[in-house]
Amino acid sequence: MSTRALTLAAPEADPIDRLDCAGLRWENGAQSAVRERLVVEEPLAIEIRYERLGQEVRKVLAVTMRTPGEDADLALGFLYCESVIDRAEDVIGGESLEENVRGEKIPTWSVRLALPPRGRDVERVSRGIITSAACGLCGRTSLQGLRMAPGAGSIGSPSISGETIVSLPGKLRLRQAIYPETGGCHGAGLFDEAGEALIVREDVGRHNAVDKVIGAALRSAIPTAGRTLVLSGRAGFELIQKAAAAGVALVVAVGAPSSFAVRLARDAGITLAGFAREGRFNVYSQTGRLIRD
Amino acid sequence: MSTRALTLAAPEADPIDRLDCAGLRWENGAQSAVRERLVVEEPLAIEIRYERLGQEVRKVLAVTMRTPGEDADLALGFLYCESVIDRAEDVIGGESLEENVRGEKIPTWSVRLALPPRGRDVERVSRGIITSAACGLCGRTSLQGLRMAPGAGSIGSPSISGETIVSLPGKLRLRQAIYPETGGCHGAGLFDEAGEALIVREDVGRHNAVDKVIGAALRSAIPTAGRTLVLSGRAGFELIQKAAAAGVALVVAVGAPSSFAVRLARDAGITLAGFAREGRFNVYSQTGRLIRD
Repeated sequence: MSTRALTLAAPEADPIDRLDCAGLRWENGAQSAVRERLVVEEPLAIEIRYERLGQEVRKVLAVTMRTPGEDADLALGFLYCESVIDRAEDVIGGESLEENVRGEKIPTWSVRLALPPRGRDVERVSRGIITSAACGLCGRTSLQGLRMAPGAGSIGSPSISGETIVSLPGKLRLRQAIYPETGGCHGAGLFDEAGEALIVREDVGRHNAVDKVIGAALRSAIPTAGRTLVLSGRAGFELIQKAAAAGVALVVAVGAPSSFAVRLARDAGITLAGFAREGRFNVYSQTGRLIRD
Repeated sequence: MSTRALTLAAPEADPIDRLDCAGLRWENGAQSAVRERLVVEEPLAIEIRYERLGQEVRKVLAVTMRTPGEDADLALGFLYCESVIDRAEDVIGGESLEENVRGEKIPTWSVRLALPPRGRDVERVSRGIITSAACGLCGRTSLQGLRMAPGAGSIGSPSISGETIVSLPGKLRLRQAIYPETGGCHGAGLFDEAGEALIVREDVGRHNAVDKVIGAALRSAIPTAGRTLVLSGRAGFELIQKAAAAGVALVVAVGAPSSFAVRLARDAGITLAGFAREGRFNVYSQTGRLIRD
């Protein structure tokens, strides 16, 4: 057994990596050289800073593998979903750094908070409970304290037609920029009641794509409550958790939901539609929100 | 803002959840009731126990959202990829428990180690660095100490034909049992030099599917070095990391690789093929291993 350190390059701002070294395409027996375009996957540490008793406190809360480019929104959405902040104004600044995290330099987005996190959250932060909630529950050792928007799922309680639902994944895809180039990233979009896209974001991690959407909504003061979140892939638990935090009424996923995602959607009053493709979809919760044609 | 606790049901042994409450299918305007089958997604804590100076030490190293059913293999593969163990014999027992992890009862697979982890790993464990490596790098705050098998990627250094590579995803799919029922889980398979499946596993998390494959190989003393790992989805960094730990020579993914995955595959000497579908694939690293037709 041996271990090796992997050297990290400087942060790449471009979400698409056009490799110097060409790859090789094999197609029905014929080989040709291809110039590859890959979605960039790179670690980002999310750090909070605040003053307590005249001292600056700095804590790295998470390290996530993300596609660079919208780190401020990613951090904002993450901190909101994790209940570290309640509104965009709780953040008074942010900057891109390289932090020494446990002996290794990692690209970091450092968020300056107006006030220290509240008591409960300070405890969670200091115990490291949310250190890895970036990926939903991986590494998170507590399921308690999941954030839900007040009356999550019920706000506005809009009805929606099946025709609108089936149109959403195609509208999301049309707004994706990295996917057509690389074939390798997830998309997430916030849609309004008329089925129009308000915010679309992409990332190699689906949880990051959703955090970016929620962060962009917070920053731009675009309400998320009662609206629709569209996902290019499967609906895992962690995405429904973030949808509940944002108070969306409807989640439309191109892929399958998991058992835990359906349980949480039912608990949160969210209408969860899955397999939304090829003119059809299934609804797993809150079916009454669907307009009967 | 409000938070709520989510109650966890008892561990479900069945990887497929046949919901009591029927869902609703919408297809081209027509609605019908459907009985849903969902892939089960549920937390599992992975705990190690060992004796030190006559005292039993117990530590939860990870909590992962996984599909139940092969927890022993999942834990074994995870501990191997994280360098906590070097061989199956380092584990002398395991049992299914419910552990109180930071105030919450979580289904747990508890692994009894023959000996305490080595010095470096004890430090990693006690500092909680690998607490969340279940999901590759999410929450992991160090990229150092990635496990690589001795001479990873170069062992045997077999050549492989394009025809064999394009046949592998179909062979993987034929061996998947949960995917045809639920449409919602990843598959991973270890294949031999002749392109035959040795071990196939499924999970809602792709990293778990690979850990299960590696764990099953360790338990059954099936060598992984120089062999082929086939992935039903994209090739993220964390999967190449696990492939390197197992010393596989070739990774074939149906989906796209990320930039970081390609960098690691090149560093580890692994041949990485992506987009392996519809009679074609791209190779991103170690193209010399491909037989020229």
